[in-house]
Amino acid sequence: MDTTRTEIASLGEFGLIEHLTKNNETRNAGTLLSVGDDAAVIDQFGRQSVISTDLLLEGIHFDLMYTPLKHLGYKAVAVNLSDIYAMMATPTHITLSLGISNKFSVEALDEFYEGVYAACEEFDVDLIGGDTTSSKIGFVISVTAVGEVAPDKYVTRSGAKVNDLICVSGDLGAAYLGLQLLEREKKIFLENPGIQPDLENQKYAVGRMLKPAPRADIKEWLEKAGITPTSMIDVSDGLSSELLHICTASDTGCILYEEKIPIHDDARKLAMEFQVGAVACALSGGEDYELLFTIKQEDYEKTARNNDISIIGYITEKTEGTNLLTKGGNKHKLTAQGWNAFHG
Amino acid sequence: MDTTRTEIASLGEFGLIEHLTKNNETRNAGTLLSVGDDAAVIDQFGRQSVISTDLLLEGIHFDLMYTPLKHLGYKAVAVNLSDIYAMMATPTHITLSLGISNKFSVEALDEFYEGVYAACEEFDVDLIGGDTTSSKIGFVISVTAVGEVAPDKYVTRSGAKVNDLICVSGDLGAAYLGLQLLEREKKIFLENPGIQPDLENQKYAVGRMLKPAPRADIKEWLEKAGITPTSMIDVSDGLSSELLHICTASDTGCILYEEKIPIHDDARKLAMEFQVGAVACALSGGEDYELLFTIKQEDYEKTARNNDISIIGYITEKTEGTNLLTKGGNKHKLTAQGWNAFHG
Repeated sequence: MDTTRTEIASLGEFGLIEHLTKNNETRNAGTLLSVGDDAAVIDQFGRQSVISTDLLLEGIHFDLMYTPLKHLGYKAVAVNLSDIYAMMATPTHITLSLGISNKFSVEALDEFYEGVYAACEEFDVDLIGGDTTSSKIGFVISVTAVGEVAPDKYVTRSGAKVNDLICVSGDLGAAYLGLQLLEREKKIFLENPGIQPDLENQKYAVGRMLKPAPRADIKEWLEKAGITPTSMIDVSDGLSSELLHICTASDTGCILYEEKIPIHDDARKLAMEFQVGAVACALSGGEDYELLFTIKQEDYEKTARNNDISIIGYITEKTEGTNLLTKGGNKHKLTAQGWNAFHG
Repeated sequence: MDTTRTEIASLGEFGLIEHLTKNNETRNAGTLLSVGDDAAVIDQFGRQSVISTDLLLEGIHFDLMYTPLKHLGYKAVAVNLSDIYAMMATPTHITLSLGISNKFSVEALDEFYEGVYAACEEFDVDLIGGDTTSSKIGFVISVTAVGEVAPDKYVTRSGAKVNDLICVSGDLGAAYLGLQLLEREKKIFLENPGIQPDLENQKYAVGRMLKPAPRADIKEWLEKAGITPTSMIDVSDGLSSELLHICTASDTGCILYEEKIPIHDDARKLAMEFQVGAVACALSGGEDYELLFTIKQEDYEKTARNNDISIIGYITEKTEGTNLLTKGGNKHKLTAQGWNAFHG
C-alpha cells in the first residue's frame, strides 16, 4: 500500500488541476476543447457549444457580511458568463445549484434570485435547471453556463503569435482595492459596532468588487469591427497570471508595458490610501472580469479607436521570457502572484 | 421595508424550487424544457441537448467515514448521468467542480478521480471542464452532465396518460437499507473502535448505496425494443415521491400494487433485521437510481419479456387519486415521505 501523502498546497491550484486531469481521455470526437481553457467546446451536430462552470463557497469566495445577496446572485451568473464571452461565444443558458444554509429565510433567497434573474435578463440567458439542497456548511453556489459559437470561431488561450499586440478592456485593480476596503470596514465595524462604514466616495471600487459586469460589449464590438483575437482569456485572477496563461498555452513570451496598464483614478487614489502599488493591484489583484486578448498587428488601428480597450504590450518569442517593462525602463520577470485558492 | 421572515422548511424542497422559479422567464426560443424535470432540454441548431446538474455536500449527501473516495467519484458522475438517461437521452460530456478541504491529500483526490474516470469510461462520456477551489467547509462536489437526443425524442415526467402501465427497472429499497447498515456500523465503530465492521454478507445493499449504476442498459433496451415511454423519471428520492412527480406533472392519478414492487431478497432480509417494512424502504428510501416510467398498454407484452423491468401499476384519472393497493386489498393514499433536504 502506497502511504505517501502529498499536500495539495505543494502543487498549487493550476498544478493540481494539471495533475488530476493528465490522464483524462477524450472519447467523443465531438469534444473539441477540454479542460484547460476558460470554457470547453463541444461539437453538437456540426454546430458548436461552449460550456463553463464555477463553484463559489461562502468564506472563500464571498463574505455575506458585506455582500448584498442580490449582488451575489448577479455576480455568480456574471463571472460564469465572463468565461463564455472570453471564448468569443454567446451565452444562452445557465444552470444554478445551491447549498442553502438553514439560517437563510425564503426572503433572503428571493433577494439572491433577484440578482440571478437580473443578470439573466441583462445578458439574455435562460435559467434552465439546477439542484437545491440544504447545507450545514454555509452558502454554496454552483453555476454552469452554456453558450454557442459559429463553427470553429471560438478563441482559445493558445493562439497568440509573436508580434501580436496584447490588449485589455476597461481598467484593472479596482475590484481588489474594493475588496480591501470592504475588509477594512468590516474589521472596523466588528471592533466598533457603533461606527457605520462610509463607502459613499468609493462607489467605483466597491461596485467593481460586488457587481462586476462581463464584457459582452467588447466581444460584440470586436465582431462588428471584424477583429478576430488570436487568443483570449478573462481576467479573474489578475493580469499577470492571465497573461502567463496565454503565453504558456501559446508557447510564447511577452513584453508588458507598466505605463500602459489601464487603472481608474479612483483605484489610484485608493491604492495610495492603502499604501500599495496600483500596478501591483492590477497585476495580482484579480476579480476584474475584463477581457485580455491578443490581436494581429494589422488590427492595431481599428482597435486603437476603441477607448475602452488598451494596448498594453506585445507577444515575443518564448526564449525572450515573460517580462514587465517599468516606466523607469527596467525589465522584470512577470510572476503569477494571483489569487491561489490553496495558499493563504 | 418588508421584514417578514419565512422559514425555508415551511415550503419544503419542491415548494422552495417552485417559489424561486415561478417568475423565471424563458427568453430563448431554443429553451424547450426548463426547470422542473430530470434535465433541461435546449434546441441547438435543430438538434437537441439535455443538461442536468447535481450538488453533493459532505455531511448531507455523503459521509467520508464509510464512503471510499473512489466510489464517491463514481457515484457523483453516475447520479448525474442517471438524470440524462431518465430523459431517454445519451450523456456525452460532464463538468466537475470541487471544493477540496485542506485535510485531503493529493493521493486522496487521485482516488476520487479514479472513480470519476471509471464512470466516464463505462458510460462513454468526456470530462471537459470544471472548477477547483479550496474549501473550509468539507468536500463539495458539483457535476453537470450534457447529453444528446434526437429531435423531440426526449421523455419528460408529464406525458403519462390514463391506462398507461407503470414500470420500474431493477429493484428498490436496498440502497436505503445499505445506508442504514453503514450508519449502524459507524455508530458501533465510534463507540468501540476495536470492533471492525463486518459487511461481507451485505455486499448487495452496501454496493447499491455506495456504487449505484445508472440504467443506461434499460434506456438502450427500450430503444431497441421500439418502446417509447410516455413519461420517465429516475428514482433518487423513493418510488412514492417519484411516482407522485409523474402524476402531478401528467395531471393523473395512479394505482400502485404493493406486491408488484420489486425488492431484492437481501433487502428483505435486511429489512427484517432492522424491523422496518421492505416496501416502506422501496417507497420512501431513495438513492436506488432505477428508472420509473410509463408505457402504453400495447407495449405490455414486449416489456413483460424483460425480467429486469417490473410492471407495478397503472395510471388513472386524476380524480381517482394516487393510491397504493396492498396485498390485503386495502387502498392507501400514496404520500411522499421521500428524502427532504430541508427536514431532518
